[in-house]
Amino acid sequence: MVKTKEILDILENYDKDNIAIATVCSHSSLQIFDGARKEGFRTIGICMGAPPKFYDAFPKAKPDEFFVVKDYKEILSKADELAAKNALIIPHGSFVEYLGAENFQKLRLPTYGNRRVLEWESDRDMSRKWLESAGIKMPKQIKNPEDIDSPMMVKYYGAKGGMGFFVVKNYSDFRKRINPAEKYTIQEFVLGTRYYMHYFYSPIKSDGYKLSRGTLELLGIDRRVESNADEIFRIGSPTELAEAGIYPTFVVTGNLPLMIRESLLPRIFEMGEQVVEKSLELFGGMIGPFCLETVVTDSLELKVFEISARIVAGTNLFISGSPYSDLVDEKLSMGRRIAREIRMARDMDILPEVIS
Amino acid sequence: MVKTKEILDILENYDKDNIAIATVCSHSSLQIFDGARKEGFRTIGICMGAPPKFYDAFPKAKPDEFFVVKDYKEILSKADELAAKNALIIPHGSFVEYLGAENFQKLRLPTYGNRRVLEWESDRDMSRKWLESAGIKMPKQIKNPEDIDSPMMVKYYGAKGGMGFFVVKNYSDFRKRINPAEKYTIQEFVLGTRYYMHYFYSPIKSDGYKLSRGTLELLGIDRRVESNADEIFRIGSPTELAEAGIYPTFVVTGNLPLMIRESLLPRIFEMGEQVVEKSLELFGGMIGPFCLETVVTDSLELKVFEISARIVAGTNLFISGSPYSDLVDEKLSMGRRIAREIRMARDMDILPEVIS
Amino acid sequence: MVKTKEILDILENYDKDNIAIATVCSHSSLQIFDGARKEGFRTIGICMGAPPKFYDAFPKAKPDEFFVVKDYKEILSKADELAAKNALIIPHGSFVEYLGAENFQKLRLPTYGNRRVLEWESDRDMSRKWLESAGIKMPKQIKNPEDIDSPMMVKYYGAKGGMGFFVVKNYSDFRKRINPAEKYTIQEFVLGTRYYMHYFYSPIKSDGYKLSRGTLELLGIDRRVESNADEIFRIGSPTELAEAGIYPTFVVTGNLPLMIRESLLPRIFEMGEQVVEKSLELFGGMIGPFCLETVVTDSLELKVFEISARIVAGTNLFISGSPYSDLVDEKLSMGRRIAREIRMARDMDILPEVIS
Repeated sequence: MVKTKEILDILENYDKDNIAIATVCSHSSLQIFDGARKEGFRTIGICMGAPPKFYDAFPKAKPDEFFVVKDYKEILSKADELAAKNALIIPHGSFVEYLGAENFQKLRLPTYGNRRVLEWESDRDMSRKWLESAGIKMPKQIKNPEDIDSPMMVKYYGAKGGMGFFVVKNYSDFRKRINPAEKYTIQEFVLGTRYYMHYFYSPIKSDGYKLSRGTLELLGIDRRVESNADEIFRIGSPTELAEAGIYPTFVVTGNLPLMIRESLLPRIFEMGEQVVEKSLELFGGMIGPFCLETVVTDSLELKVFEISARIVAGTNLFISGSPYSDLVDEKLSMGRRIAREIRMARDMDILPEVIS
Repeated sequence: MVKTKEILDILENYDKDNIAIATVCSHSSLQIFDGARKEGFRTIGICMGAPPKFYDAFPKAKPDEFFVVKDYKEILSKADELAAKNALIIPHGSFVEYLGAENFQKLRLPTYGNRRVLEWESDRDMSRKWLESAGIKMPKQIKNPEDIDSPMMVKYYGAKGGMGFFVVKNYSDFRKRINPAEKYTIQEFVLGTRYYMHYFYSPIKSDGYKLSRGTLELLGIDRRVESNADEIFRIGSPTELAEAGIYPTFVVTGNLPLMIRESLLPRIFEMGEQVVEKSLELFGGMIGPFCLETVVTDSLELKVFEISARIVAGTNLFISGSPYSDLVDEKLSMGRRIAREIRMARDMDILPEVIS
Repeated sequence: MVKTKEILDILENYDKDNIAIATVCSHSSLQIFDGARKEGFRTIGICMGAPPKFYDAFPKAKPDEFFVVKDYKEILSKADELAAKNALIIPHGSFVEYLGAENFQKLRLPTYGNRRVLEWESDRDMSRKWLESAGIKMPKQIKNPEDIDSPMMVKYYGAKGGMGFFVVKNYSDFRKRINPAEKYTIQEFVLGTRYYMHYFYSPIKSDGYKLSRGTLELLGIDRRVESNADEIFRIGSPTELAEAGIYPTFVVTGNLPLMIRESLLPRIFEMGEQVVEKSLELFGGMIGPFCLETVVTDSLELKVFEISARIVAGTNLFISGSPYSDLVDEKLSMGRRIAREIRMARDMDILPEVIS
């Protein structure tokens, strides 16, 4: 991992009045560029091969400049060129995936957020340790597949965007479907309805929902649309389909907007608070956007089955504001909230507090 | 029930230029406070124990003042204190539930809407009588559980937020699941897709969709998200799951936004009109927001399975406007529409027409 | 079909500074009237019998004038009256359905878009030819029902709004359900999640996502809500229900808003581009709004099962903008985009390029 001192040295040489917000052209880049421009920043879109033509259709979200690489790994070797442009990196899921988690840790460019969160988030055992020690309820996990006696979700390590997930009901199901070459976890399938909460933690803003340090916001909620699980019921039940060798899959293809019962908000904020406070203790804090991926059961309990420690694609729904962010400020997308945080830190001359 | 004269006497003593909109801190309180402020009112959040911290995260919706009670029943005994603050109560589902329907009828504070609607709405027989006599089509109801020969929804009396609902297909199913100690109704399970229409009836506004007295608006449509019924298909069909003792439940956990076929709007307004006109006849009118909870069948028939005679939580989706309310006025949430009605009545000096 | 020259002669006599946007009062008329007014046009609502009262509830979308006909066919015989009012027709699905496709082709009034698209779109063989020759992937189609060996969707010719669709799994299913008197197609049921993309093709706008001529936009995405298919799982699986003679149906009752994975946008634009370019080659171009109705599979492939070559009702969700159109311009509904295109063409004095 790159040393904090190296990053601070690079930042030291930046022209702070001319910072460019840079990210990879995918995932949530439209709102990141749109939000950055609205907060007064230049924008750089990092892309492979050639600038994607689709930005031409979205003038408000087209980056000021494209930075073309042959291969995403080239971002590492061309970091100096980006630094010369005063580039401040906004990481998102595809950015980390395309570059590789290890490479991302090595990237010699000022990056929004705390990169140390990655090791806690990407390892299922460590993220469970983090969340459970924070007081979060998670689906039960079992070690021995022979113990499967109710619906369970099996997830391969490092599975992305819902690929490599499947549901089994017993050991025989499990044996039929598992690839023994891969590392996996087995988690209780919690019955309920899914809600993905979009939190934002600012270590530097002092008015609002206060934590031991900084403040917490909730800017939106979505539900992921999963292919084919969300529509497969149209042709048959899981048991009927399994006989024909057809299985539900959980690949995220998009998102739909949701509100949650207002009476659950106290618990939702408490959960966000617990996770942030524990992160401050464990690794210096999870800075900026994060998402708790929950199931709400019919007894109105919230169980968290995963955490994402950066901007999630579900926030793309709320480019002009959500019913939650509209109560904070007008037209506040997550992309814009991130840019505003950077602007605030820049103006207060405390950028090191929000980058790594 | 508190007498109208008592309420009017209390109101008489109010400083009309300094009315405070007050409600219980739950359900749809964020938009009620946000809307009230936008229409120029002070706001009071009634809460139990201590002010909920989550309002700090939503500065636009944080009430100007919290009114703390030890127990919601205390609102009754502290009514004078609230009256001294010129509090005008906006009731919502949780307000009525927490206080209890009978206590709500006794509350000695000016309350938006007609409290007499409660007796017609909360009793399933009376609400059916009201709606059917208004010309509304409802799911068939059967008295004798032995007659169950197709999918039927069983609902316990006073079941709230979808708790205490279940589906049965025959008498044997019914016997297996019923709690004989509770009062219930048995209603045909109508096949189709659910739409929850957010109407607003103003007895005092004269331009718009005219009724015999006042006007009718449609400000939004949502679909309730029910746990676990909305996602249980992922692990099995109802029959398969019943063998494992797992049953779908219908607890409302949130809402998602919807539009309905434009060709159904004439019938949707006609239905709203019929229900309001009949309410004027039966009990002096259902004032303000109400919701018809419908199933649209594949022959495009609308069947109403329930009515809510006050603001529903589904309107929380539209804090900055819905595709329907945007055609009425900009950024018109239901909370704001209510506040605007009170402001209009105050300015015209006819507040008694919209409170009870 | 009416000759282009006739239409241009009619248009020649129009007072170009006083054009009225006219459409039938249904489908997407609210946003068409709202958008037209926002772009500075007068509006005419064509209706049968009497003006629908529901427009009174939506002041921003109420047409300036109603044009009442006894029967929709009367629009043909009264075309001169509408021409005298400088009426420019915006066609939508219900407009074409109510008038009849053949009559629509004969309508002697300037009509937005290219009417020649109708013959390519309404015939399933021709639309398949168009799309496949454009490089679009579609669900496989089989000719012989005896070959059905996996879930297949059977669609009657000219089926509207999802009526007359059904799913079968084998030949015996097919025989049980088919009406042999009707013409049908048999299409693979593609497993995945549905996304309906709202494109806009402008032959006259030059800045943006460029095609060989003009530019392409993406203004929104929805999912159709189908009755009863979307909620029938609550009572049983298709196989269980078939035993009781209950079958899923696919009648569109409304729409819900969606976002799609940002990484799919390059392919989505490419698809729109291919379809437009091929239409330019085949019949002079599909002008204005169109919709590709797709399934996104779990390998993130997009399969198109249908095309609509005019404004679709799903755009009704986005009367005040969508997360996509917000990146183009503020509050840009599809109805408004159409009106803006007409205004641009009028101002540039090239109206013939966008009407027929």
